[in-house]
Amino acid sequence: MSIHAVKRAHANLVWDNSIPPVIRIQSGETVTFDCLDASNGQVTPDSTHAHAGSMILTEIDQVNGPVYVEGALPGDTLQVDVLTIQIGEWGWTGVSPGFGLLHDEFPEPRLKLWKLDQALGFVYFDEAKRIKIPLRPFAGEMGVAPGKSGAFSTIPPYNTGGNLDTRHISAGATLFLPIEVEGALFSIGDGHAAQGDGEVCGTAIETSMKVSVRLTVRKDRSFTKTPHFISPPANDRNGSHYCTTGVEPDLREAARSAVRNMIEFLHATYKLERVDAYMLCSIVGDLRIHEAVDMPNYVVGMMIPHSVLPKEPV
Amino acid sequence: MSIHAVKRAHANLVWDNSIPPVIRIQSGETVTFDCLDASNGQVTPDSTHAHAGSMILTEIDQVNGPVYVEGALPGDTLQVDVLTIQIGEWGWTGVSPGFGLLHDEFPEPRLKLWKLDQALGFVYFDEAKRIKIPLRPFAGEMGVAPGKSGAFSTIPPYNTGGNLDTRHISAGATLFLPIEVEGALFSIGDGHAAQGDGEVCGTAIETSMKVSVRLTVRKDRSFTKTPHFISPPANDRNGSHYCTTGVEPDLREAARSAVRNMIEFLHATYKLERVDAYMLCSIVGDLRIHEAVDMPNYVVGMMIPHSVLPKEPV
Repeated sequence: MSIHAVKRAHANLVWDNSIPPVIRIQSGETVTFDCLDASNGQVTPDSTHAHAGSMILTEIDQVNGPVYVEGALPGDTLQVDVLTIQIGEWGWTGVSPGFGLLHDEFPEPRLKLWKLDQALGFVYFDEAKRIKIPLRPFAGEMGVAPGKSGAFSTIPPYNTGGNLDTRHISAGATLFLPIEVEGALFSIGDGHAAQGDGEVCGTAIETSMKVSVRLTVRKDRSFTKTPHFISPPANDRNGSHYCTTGVEPDLREAARSAVRNMIEFLHATYKLERVDAYMLCSIVGDLRIHEAVDMPNYVVGMMIPHSVLPKEPV
Repeated sequence: MSIHAVKRAHANLVWDNSIPPVIRIQSGETVTFDCLDASNGQVTPDSTHAHAGSMILTEIDQVNGPVYVEGALPGDTLQVDVLTIQIGEWGWTGVSPGFGLLHDEFPEPRLKLWKLDQALGFVYFDEAKRIKIPLRPFAGEMGVAPGKSGAFSTIPPYNTGGNLDTRHISAGATLFLPIEVEGALFSIGDGHAAQGDGEVCGTAIETSMKVSVRLTVRKDRSFTKTPHFISPPANDRNGSHYCTTGVEPDLREAARSAVRNMIEFLHATYKLERVDAYMLCSIVGDLRIHEAVDMPNYVVGMMIPHSVLPKEPV
């Protein structure tokens, strides 16, 4: 099995199924991507607060790819196993005017620069105050091309993925994306060294990254209508979780979609009656706001610990 | 220090500051409450699906109390240390028409009865399918009387607490509530044997409970404008979390309130500049939808692991 590579220069600012693939791989092969941070090089280690206010928004959130996976057809599911993520040696967090959950209350640009050492495992937010942040790298953007013709901004997430900004999809996680075009046309980007659920100020610890993923075409998951994922066992006291997402402009509708998708998963996989699956979500599933800032679409997840369920027939 | 008791009969169906206290205690004393399940006895071990559709809604979600805490004044904070919770020997989960996140998609009443054994630590959802639910008891309702005159339904939560339905406030947790009336007038109810964040079908595993809490008046937490809590260390891989909530009719506004309250907590406690606190929330704080069904108010929490922060000056 060969390893394929996608370079920094192979980046796009839109999702568009007419963009030709940079490489073609067999289902089950591994690809390594070298990705610049989400500012697309606009922020440097010398940047100041003002830079957080002067970024050209049409040039951010580039994604590297696309990768054509042989055998992938509309209606199939792309399984993305996140194998390794190596973050860069520095990063940034910004507050940009007009962006973020409290954008009206924080109108001034603000930039924080970080020196990162992934081997150390954490970075000080404020060393004098002893506030330190564990490093938990993940890719904010993972998606496949839309079936619809046209060019769609990489800033919002979609049902086909994209800017999910979901911290649980770290190394060891498996993401499932609904395929809408032949070859799937997978892209990735937006390295994050750490982020909470919500990404409330609009940014994570943004950084460059080298990321390896294994891409596999699945013909047996027609219930995957939005991004689903399995979180890595080490992320939580209760081990890995199965998560269904809802991607909608309204948080309540996103939550409803996430629950609806979990019910369909439980119905398809464990043959539960839908109303029973609904009750199961209520007593043991957690609603989390994974991303509340990438307008106009937000991501809510319904997460159920695998420990609650019998072994999946996957 | 004496232990006080509130009985099953001492229950009310509204929050109303004119309801006379059933007991008066000193700050720092412990009270034990004996509470019927949230159906107020309408569901029994012999109930059928139809009962989930015929409940009298004006008789549910009763709360036991109120308890007058000496020295409590408007503007103070009530610290509620949850000491022990003993659940009943049976419970129920229901889907009631018109109630729940997907109420329009599940219009039929449905009732599931459970035989509970707290010592066992779990209950089978479906034994043949090996789906089992860990028991994680908590009180769905904890609150203090509103400053405003009048009778307010115990079904929605408020900034003064009430039907928070927040699973993290289990034994070992500490809840902080803003006091609006002399004596605080604390009440509790709504025993839950297990529930996920969201309580999406509208109910948890509902059960009777005996619960002990220690009530302490705090004069040093004027930043507590909505319920805050500290989750028990055992609940999460990252240990205990500090959580601020937002209680609003719109989930996005609830999320904004939760973040705003966390920023004020971090500013007051750790002297962080507000914009820095905002960025800290983004990189290490998690937005969770604790409750999405108790119309018209929903509860969103912003949770930060204590391990990230230095020891609080509490």
